Amino acid sequence: MFEAIALDADDTLWENETFFRATEADFAALLSEHADPDLVNARLVATEMRNLSRYGFGIKGFMLSMVQTAIELTEGRIDGNSIGRIIEMGQDMLSHPVHLLEGVEQVLATLEGRHLLLITKGDLIDQERKIAASGLAGHFAGVEILADKTPASYASVLARRAIAPERFLMAGNSMKSDVMPVIRIGGTGVFIPHDLTWSLEHAEPQQDESYHELAAIAQLPVLIDELEGRS
Amino acid sequence: MFEAIALDADDTLWENETFFRATEADFAALLSEHADPDLVNARLVATEMRNLSRYGFGIKGFMLSMVQTAIELTEGRIDGNSIGRIIEMGQDMLSHPVHLLEGVEQVLATLEGRHLLLITKGDLIDQERKIAASGLAGHFAGVEILADKTPASYASVLARRAIAPERFLMAGNSMKSDVMPVIRIGGTGVFIPHDLTWSLEHAEPQQDESYHELAAIAQLPVLIDELEGRS
Repeated sequence: MFEAIALDADDTLWENETFFRATEADFAALLSEHADPDLVNARLVATEMRNLSRYGFGIKGFMLSMVQTAIELTEGRIDGNSIGRIIEMGQDMLSHPVHLLEGVEQVLATLEGRHLLLITKGDLIDQERKIAASGLAGHFAGVEILADKTPASYASVLARRAIAPERFLMAGNSMKSDVMPVIRIGGTGVFIPHDLTWSLEHAEPQQDESYHELAAIAQLPVLIDELEGRS
Repeated sequence: MFEAIALDADDTLWENETFFRATEADFAALLSEHADPDLVNARLVATEMRNLSRYGFGIKGFMLSMVQTAIELTEGRIDGNSIGRIIEMGQDMLSHPVHLLEGVEQVLATLEGRHLLLITKGDLIDQERKIAASGLAGHFAGVEILADKTPASYASVLARRAIAPERFLMAGNSMKSDVMPVIRIGGTGVFIPHDLTWSLEHAEPQQDESYHELAAIAQLPVLIDELEGRS
């Protein structure tokens, strides 16, 4: 029997990557007279990777990386108003509506009474905004917003909450952030792929008895029943 | 007897505002051909206030507000390379060294054995970097990085940790963030002013028996002894 069942938020409970992709397309269009869209995207991803250790995850770091990419790609020729447009694109992202993924509300209702945790990463203020806007906060016994999802950061959450790793299940759309680190510390990881996943979140599927993959979050309650030997 | 003694971090344990002030001066110098320094600073503060609800606290939001201010102040005439320079200034801030304030290490040694919490706000990744770089993490039973410090956010921390507000003491350099909200929920607030405090953190001193002011953090252990009736 699992003591705690944890869920990722972005692209597990609600849409997220789609807003990034739309902004990336707008960004490439803005720079279309300087470079073709594939090059713009490649340079943006490279800048994001370079900045990850200083900015962490989230929209503000993404905005700063777009500005930096635009300057570097145009060798400083980009004008102030175009950069102002980039800032506006990012500010729009920071107020985007929260669209729940299909099946989420029903799954949370089915798991009512279990010790549910929401474990996400990124900007504190943006994640808190989305959690509030989702209307889902009441389903969770606890919310953890981490700077990054690593074996150490999961271990720290479990230690603080006195949860045994072998009785901990985490489900999410990122193999790298939601599944691998949890299996590494002795927990159960459930991979629920999303159509869109950021390139920096990709990782090879696991070969491990603690690894499970589902096509949709709606299948999670049945998997939990199976793993707990109730079916 | 206090169950938990909590300390703020920026400008309570280590220097912070001084790095902002130095960058503000560099920013004003960069824009000196467009406007005088006082106007640049006033516009920057106004932009920061306008952006606070979307960006929250921290250096990344400050960087984005500098970029936006530069564009608005020059009506888009600022060039890409100057904006690149603003990004670099911010990136330098994100890697600034952590300078402990005088008396901090001794106070923490004196309070050894007490249940100490570090409660700060701002960017997750930047605060975690500074906590690690400070070498002080081992003194604290817990660390809380909040999006904002309000009566509700303190109440949530205390509820989660099962600490009674009337047995909770919080000390820090911000009347608005460290003192007022704690007194509001029934705790004890200790104001330790710093020479530099961000204008958005100012508030009127409290008239309350739960309010105390110290000239330096070094006086904190003696105040705690007094409040606990041991001297």
